[in-house]
Amino acid sequence: AVPQSLAAAMAGGPCRGLLDYKTAKFALTRNRRVGLLHRLLQLGVLGYLLGWVLLARKGYQDTDRAPRAAVVTKLKGAAAAEVRGAGRRLWDAADYARPPQGGNVLFLVTNFIATAGQAQGTCPESPSVPAGMCTEDADCPMGEPVVHGNGIKTGKCVMFNTTHSTCEIYGWCPVENNTLSRKPLLAEAENFTLFIRNTVHFTKFNFSRCNALQTNDPYYFKSCTYDPSLSPSCPIFRVRDMVEAAGETFGDLALLGGSIGVRIEWDCDLDRPAAQCQPQYSFSLQDRKYNFRTASYYWDSQRRLYRTLLKLYGIRFDISVHGQVLLPLPG
Amino acid sequence: AVPQSLAAAMAGGPCRGLLDYKTAKFALTRNRRVGLLHRLLQLGVLGYLLGWVLLARKGYQDTDRAPRAAVVTKLKGAAAAEVRGAGRRLWDAADYARPPQGGNVLFLVTNFIATAGQAQGTCPESPSVPAGMCTEDADCPMGEPVVHGNGIKTGKCVMFNTTHSTCEIYGWCPVENNTLSRKPLLAEAENFTLFIRNTVHFTKFNFSRCNALQTNDPYYFKSCTYDPSLSPSCPIFRVRDMVEAAGETFGDLALLGGSIGVRIEWDCDLDRPAAQCQPQYSFSLQDRKYNFRTASYYWDSQRRLYRTLLKLYGIRFDISVHGQVLLPLPG
Amino acid sequence: AVPQSLAAAMAGGPCRGLLDYKTAKFALTRNRRVGLLHRLLQLGVLGYLLGWVLLARKGYQDTDRAPRAAVVTKLKGAAAAEVRGAGRRLWDAADYARPPQGGNVLFLVTNFIATAGQAQGTCPESPSVPAGMCTEDADCPMGEPVVHGNGIKTGKCVMFNTTHSTCEIYGWCPVENNTLSRKPLLAEAENFTLFIRNTVHFTKFNFSRCNALQTNDPYYFKSCTYDPSLSPSCPIFRVRDMVEAAGETFGDLALLGGSIGVRIEWDCDLDRPAAQCQPQYSFSLQDRKYNFRTASYYWDSQRRLYRTLLKLYGIRFDISVHGQVLLPLPG
Repeated sequence: AVPQSLAAAMAGGPCRGLLDYKTAKFALTRNRRVGLLHRLLQLGVLGYLLGWVLLARKGYQDTDRAPRAAVVTKLKGAAAAEVRGAGRRLWDAADYARPPQGGNVLFLVTNFIATAGQAQGTCPESPSVPAGMCTEDADCPMGEPVVHGNGIKTGKCVMFNTTHSTCEIYGWCPVENNTLSRKPLLAEAENFTLFIRNTVHFTKFNFSRCNALQTNDPYYFKSCTYDPSLSPSCPIFRVRDMVEAAGETFGDLALLGGSIGVRIEWDCDLDRPAAQCQPQYSFSLQDRKYNFRTASYYWDSQRRLYRTLLKLYGIRFDISVHGQVLLPLPG
Repeated sequence: AVPQSLAAAMAGGPCRGLLDYKTAKFALTRNRRVGLLHRLLQLGVLGYLLGWVLLARKGYQDTDRAPRAAVVTKLKGAAAAEVRGAGRRLWDAADYARPPQGGNVLFLVTNFIATAGQAQGTCPESPSVPAGMCTEDADCPMGEPVVHGNGIKTGKCVMFNTTHSTCEIYGWCPVENNTLSRKPLLAEAENFTLFIRNTVHFTKFNFSRCNALQTNDPYYFKSCTYDPSLSPSCPIFRVRDMVEAAGETFGDLALLGGSIGVRIEWDCDLDRPAAQCQPQYSFSLQDRKYNFRTASYYWDSQRRLYRTLLKLYGIRFDISVHGQVLLPLPG
Repeated sequence: AVPQSLAAAMAGGPCRGLLDYKTAKFALTRNRRVGLLHRLLQLGVLGYLLGWVLLARKGYQDTDRAPRAAVVTKLKGAAAAEVRGAGRRLWDAADYARPPQGGNVLFLVTNFIATAGQAQGTCPESPSVPAGMCTEDADCPMGEPVVHGNGIKTGKCVMFNTTHSTCEIYGWCPVENNTLSRKPLLAEAENFTLFIRNTVHFTKFNFSRCNALQTNDPYYFKSCTYDPSLSPSCPIFRVRDMVEAAGETFGDLALLGGSIGVRIEWDCDLDRPAAQCQPQYSFSLQDRKYNFRTASYYWDSQRRLYRTLLKLYGIRFDISVHGQVLLPLPG
């Protein structure tokens, strides 16, 4: 009942103690009922391991959870929209998709404010910039930029309109017009489609898959549309379906913009036929309100620089790929 | 042979049972052969732990498998190419690389279809769009967009050419010309180079590395080219070498485009000299066929809006960074 | 002292041995001191488990370490800068931010070299390209591209200036001017701000958070600036503060460009109030020197193609999101 092997090792010669062998004493019970219970318990543990862990939870497989994913996206569709002061105009993908090369983040313009013919000069700051408001010239110290504003103060406080006075600024003039259309200009974009081509490669097993069906029909990808129950393997998504799957209405999101997350989830079992290894798609709202400004530049015949400033509102699609592949262990 | 300590704790007073001490009975064997065998087994386990786990498999080290990676890429090279109807023209990086700022995805134009002078108007839909085919006006209901097409039907069915009739559409006219050059316009792009600057930071160990050699020779990065055996530390890759390492031929990929994955793999052991911590590069084909459309806009002297539509085919490089750093545990 | 149960199972009938039950023999010691020591040791282990593992290290919680993150960025600010030969000009976000749509990588132009009026033609190669140097025509074989250069050799060796002779090339002429301003053109960009809107979603717990304070004050995001101690929850960062937090000075980085990593770290405990789940920001230098070239194209009245080539230097912000959410296990 006292630690023996160490004591023996210390008490005897350095070699003798080292070579002692200690084992616990056992009692053997020849009782059928106790023995049966004992074996049943062992069978239970074995059954759990084989049945639950190996078969149900696939505990016997090796897993690769880090796919290398390549995502290529393309928006398709065309719609005519009335642009204030510019008449009716048709919009196609080259007009409304940014960036054109379509990676895992892609933006669809649905509304915009255009400020044409801006040139360098002086004009009153916009009353929507708090730091640009003024009551007298002293509020507008010359040379100071307007915080979160559009230019450099010239030192004068001028009338913006009948109700507001703002600092005069040096900058791109006139300043951006702030009135956004009450309804999205490109309301018909709900019927546009987003094509997502996603290839995944699981390096551990050197296993690759693509979400687009391997088909010889040249018109298939020009005619199908994704539907979770009817055509779950068509990689062409209607914009409105995606927005609604994210729990939003297209009209609301199109007006002030928003960001939709598209999650592609691969869960493949190499025990099952390869055809069953199909991705699942899910859609979620990442953010309401999304816009950015961009400009195109041109020169007039006197070589004076002008720009058209565009504030673009629209839907940003952010595609992320996740997944795992399971493989039986050898043996 | 029955659970004792609990029984004792229940039977005796609350304190007496608690303070009983139970230990297994042992038998001590003073037999040199059994003892020697026992010690040899213990030595074997110890030897396995020290020899295999600690030294061979580096089991004694701490690992960081999640580097923060920054990737900056730049395409270099120039080639002259005959453009149909536009004469010979030299192409440099500002012409063929998209986006110009070069992140972890970069695109090299190798072929394109240009449709110059498009303006808003009416014209026949392209016969390559199935939904635009027609035999009579009733096939083209007015105001309906052509599915996967280029515009809005005007209600008329018109002759596209001697063999095909298509719906007349309102849109950017004329519609895109569909004939792609049979050989890549920028066939010489195979000799262009891609510079990849990759810095990794392992936050767990505050350890940073860059794939570009630290050198004082200003001409080094202007003259070396990556070769897996001759110059594995030069971060400048010839386009053709990358395409071939991915198992493709440049000419095929340049014609209709494609996507090449570039994998940078860091595997650094902080026990070894820092100079040995060099990344491995591997190249794989992600996808055949890659193209997108982009447009540039201009106004004529009557302020009418025109655009040049470009359908660009080419090679998309998608760079991903993986890796781990190993560090001995203290003590 | 010999393995018993197997021996018994082999010796007896196949059923008898199977149903034997073997247990170790125990010795019970009724000694208060030994018993007390034994229980104290057990209490110590229990105390360690409850106190240290469960309370201090949160070992009882479930964790999600893989957030889905959406990042939207926007640069704001305006500054006037003297451009060589082009007079004073105001720069705003549409002028200096690339790409305009602002994802997790965003670039702020702080310096540039503009080469206006390039057209296809012949001119001497730049002496900064080693492969373009020559002493006689034989050094410039016709039709060969200049390695890492700007065009195709025409076969002539010409004077570039009084000290250098270079091969004549066919390409965009004149070649890029190499003289960069000694001080950054947009030195005032240090006061520009970067707005980062980051939403994270932890799918395991269906838990989402946004780094921007939920507020009803429309002017809050137009007036606050991030400060690690004073306003740690304002998602608007002054450019100079970020550069200095990365250990650099703005002036140095603005001259030749550089890359700043912005790390957003979420560490949320669902036991604590949701308001405490705020991200931490950290800034690090990824790389010194960053530039790229881009061009804008135009036609003169004779339909000859020209371009303005811009070599842009500036600060690249690379935002990465990391984090974990902890949740108590049920029960």
